[in-house]
Amino acid sequence: MSAPERIAVIVAGGSGQRMNAKMPKQFMLLNGKPVIFYSIEKFHECNSGIIVVLPEDQKENWNKLIREHNMQIPHQVTIGGATRSLSVYNGLKMVKNGDALVAVHDAARPMISVSLIERIFDEAATKGNAIPVIPVKDSIRRITADENKSVDRDQYFIVQTPQIFHASALKKAFENSNFTSFTDEATLMEQSGLKIATVTGERANIKITFPEDFIFVQSALNNK
Amino acid sequence: MSAPERIAVIVAGGSGQRMNAKMPKQFMLLNGKPVIFYSIEKFHECNSGIIVVLPEDQKENWNKLIREHNMQIPHQVTIGGATRSLSVYNGLKMVKNGDALVAVHDAARPMISVSLIERIFDEAATKGNAIPVIPVKDSIRRITADENKSVDRDQYFIVQTPQIFHASALKKAFENSNFTSFTDEATLMEQSGLKIATVTGERANIKITFPEDFIFVQSALNNK
Repeated sequence: MSAPERIAVIVAGGSGQRMNAKMPKQFMLLNGKPVIFYSIEKFHECNSGIIVVLPEDQKENWNKLIREHNMQIPHQVTIGGATRSLSVYNGLKMVKNGDALVAVHDAARPMISVSLIERIFDEAATKGNAIPVIPVKDSIRRITADENKSVDRDQYFIVQTPQIFHASALKKAFENSNFTSFTDEATLMEQSGLKIATVTGERANIKITFPEDFIFVQSALNNK
Repeated sequence: MSAPERIAVIVAGGSGQRMNAKMPKQFMLLNGKPVIFYSIEKFHECNSGIIVVLPEDQKENWNKLIREHNMQIPHQVTIGGATRSLSVYNGLKMVKNGDALVAVHDAARPMISVSLIERIFDEAATKGNAIPVIPVKDSIRRITADENKSVDRDQYFIVQTPQIFHASALKKAFENSNFTSFTDEATLMEQSGLKIATVTGERANIKITFPEDFIFVQSALNNK
């Protein structure tokens, strides 16, 4: 059996409201290079095809970035929707091979490593899907209208990306959903009955959400 | 009514196993100053008395740090126990005034701010107790022997320190417990029936646990 085709859908749809920045975080320069280029390079190293999902208003900026940074890695571009779910689905529609393993990845996670991508693709090739998770390190509480209570932190895990599924199964799950926004694809897929396989992620593979996160990845890169 | 006495129990008991470092993280130098000194300075600014709980093998090192860094802030020192709970309890035993508000704080959280300390003391003065929490920003899953399932992240919050309680109530809760280790004091207190009051913490107020965390606080300080 030959290895399944690998395709990364790199989602750069976020507006960066939590960053207090005009430029969405995934296009900001990190050591002189746009944040999203880090992920593209890593997936390219893993022999994965690349589909980039851009916000409508960044299409012009994208061509400028490609030129300015002389980005040579082959990739396809499509435009995102109003929600993360619609953006991922727009990317998925570009995938012709239903048997391909599709890795949905946040463009705002530039610290993703080649070895983690490989481990998730390998696990997904065996189990049909795989996502990276890391243990919660802090105490956590569940706070709702009815309760405010500590929970056993040993039972809780932070979910990262890339999250890898078979293209056909993921596409079908989106089409059977009502396209309400899910915070991640694993949540969507388990609602259609799939058992999610997890691999141990990497603590450095954070999503840049707040200004502190940008400082973190910058210094993590400089300390490598 | 006069404001209640404020006392900080700053717990520096951890061995730093997750840091891969010989020196416990709370004594490492951050911009030339021991990590734990940052918290001591902030509580001193808030007119709080200070009790430092040290590991047995750091007592000599402590005196050396005080001398070398010319640390002038008045404080008491006691020795920690085998677990975090025993360390906190040892610190608590130094508090003579049962009506004091005691702030239990991780020495490994140097980014604590004066304004956050003030907000928690103020809330505790009104509600009887208060702890800082921040929303979880990532997707999270509950993974146990029986299930592996996404949970609604909007219901989960990361717990920080300082956690503030009345000295007498906290002491009593420890004495009524069997001194098994709790990950935080709120968990202990709610088991004795207390309703926990929460205030919004600060994202920068992280606990240095992994080497990446040290890099983060270092650059957060330098970017101030």
